[in-house]
Amino acid sequence: MRILLTNDDGIYAKGLQTLLEHIKPLGDVFVVAPERERSASGHGITVHKPLRANEVRPMQYAVSGTPADCVKLALEALLPEKPDLIISGINLGANLGTDVLYSGTVSAAIEGIMAGIPALAVSLVSYDENSDFSTAASITTDLCRALAHRQFPRETLLNVNVPQGSLEDIKGVRVTTLGIRRYKNSVEERKDPRGKSYYWLGGQVENIASREDSDLVAVSDNYVSITPVHFDLTNYRILEQIRNWNLDTLLK
Amino acid sequence: MRILLTNDDGIYAKGLQTLLEHIKPLGDVFVVAPERERSASGHGITVHKPLRANEVRPMQYAVSGTPADCVKLALEALLPEKPDLIISGINLGANLGTDVLYSGTVSAAIEGIMAGIPALAVSLVSYDENSDFSTAASITTDLCRALAHRQFPRETLLNVNVPQGSLEDIKGVRVTTLGIRRYKNSVEERKDPRGKSYYWLGGQVENIASREDSDLVAVSDNYVSITPVHFDLTNYRILEQIRNWNLDTLLK
Repeated sequence: MRILLTNDDGIYAKGLQTLLEHIKPLGDVFVVAPERERSASGHGITVHKPLRANEVRPMQYAVSGTPADCVKLALEALLPEKPDLIISGINLGANLGTDVLYSGTVSAAIEGIMAGIPALAVSLVSYDENSDFSTAASITTDLCRALAHRQFPRETLLNVNVPQGSLEDIKGVRVTTLGIRRYKNSVEERKDPRGKSYYWLGGQVENIASREDSDLVAVSDNYVSITPVHFDLTNYRILEQIRNWNLDTLLK
Repeated sequence: MRILLTNDDGIYAKGLQTLLEHIKPLGDVFVVAPERERSASGHGITVHKPLRANEVRPMQYAVSGTPADCVKLALEALLPEKPDLIISGINLGANLGTDVLYSGTVSAAIEGIMAGIPALAVSLVSYDENSDFSTAASITTDLCRALAHRQFPRETLLNVNVPQGSLEDIKGVRVTTLGIRRYKNSVEERKDPRGKSYYWLGGQVENIASREDSDLVAVSDNYVSITPVHFDLTNYRILEQIRNWNLDTLLK
């Protein structure tokens, strides 16, 4: 099995390196990851300047771009053959609900499925920099083994969020939907020493979990959350409604 | 009517300024847009450094961040009240199919609907910097007028792509689904003067329009394409299939 690891916390992040140690027995594992932290980079790609890839250790490349850049570069230039699986993570911090749109971790996995390669995005529900990733790494490795015996869904990644703690602390696994996360006070205005305004993005999370089977509910109940995520943002449910608007009259 | 305009080509881009002239009669129009081009920024937001907003003209702010940053800042700090509508564009270049995931234009509109505000993303199907945006601006203005008499769908934006040419050249309007766009040869390796490799992202488009009603087909037939886009990436169709995998055994 040929596996590509990437992330958005940077190639030296503990989450990626812990996963690498756990997953090595499964096959050939390549790492192509950003040379520095690129959190919240969304699905950005680098088109206005060239990219560099530095082989920092055998089969490990540090790239001067975003997580999505890393996957493009890995598939088209750095790896000898296409991988069988792409794993993005393990991210320090949850990637839940609507936040997945901002997530470099999930975007790297989306880049994988757009190229036809099965992908996992894995995150640890913790913001403590000293977090222990070994439980999450062990669950991810077992998940890879389990997936080898299942038909991996086409053009769909699995977005995995693992609660903190030991295996005994985790109550089970739930297959979930993406909930809705909003932030309040998401912009903070400050004044610089010359009295001019500048702004920090941030804010406090307001979870709006419309469905009982959402990822937000699962992790708050201490379950591993696994959400099937695809790359089609079309809202099929309202296609007919909008077709009935007869917008053709715009041109008359 | 209070309208917020933004884009990813930068506040001085011809597409935005042409739309501003056309749309002014509809109400109070604020512009909050990146101070420079931010194409392909995806849904990135700026969390590691603060943002600046410079009022370059009355009611027009140039922001040192991404399109999604602009919408957050507009809604939370710059505008006196929430707008009734957000329009992102008019972008120079189509935003079709899977490419919408990379699109700063569409991400700004997604940021709007996440905050509960109706939004349009508008793009001109042209890569010629001297393009005339007046037909697209006129269609967008008429669309805004038409929407005022319809129930705008909740948590859904309309992704509008307008072919080049005059009104007479355009055959009609189609309500479409997002097609699939892939790129071949998407990474080009070059050598610097010291013999070290660097890489450009690019490549040639391969349209894979799986559905006849896709946006890709519509614009190539010279129709205005309008796609309803939401922010839920859950693949509901395969939830049950994955639930039947009984992944709970991972923890045993």
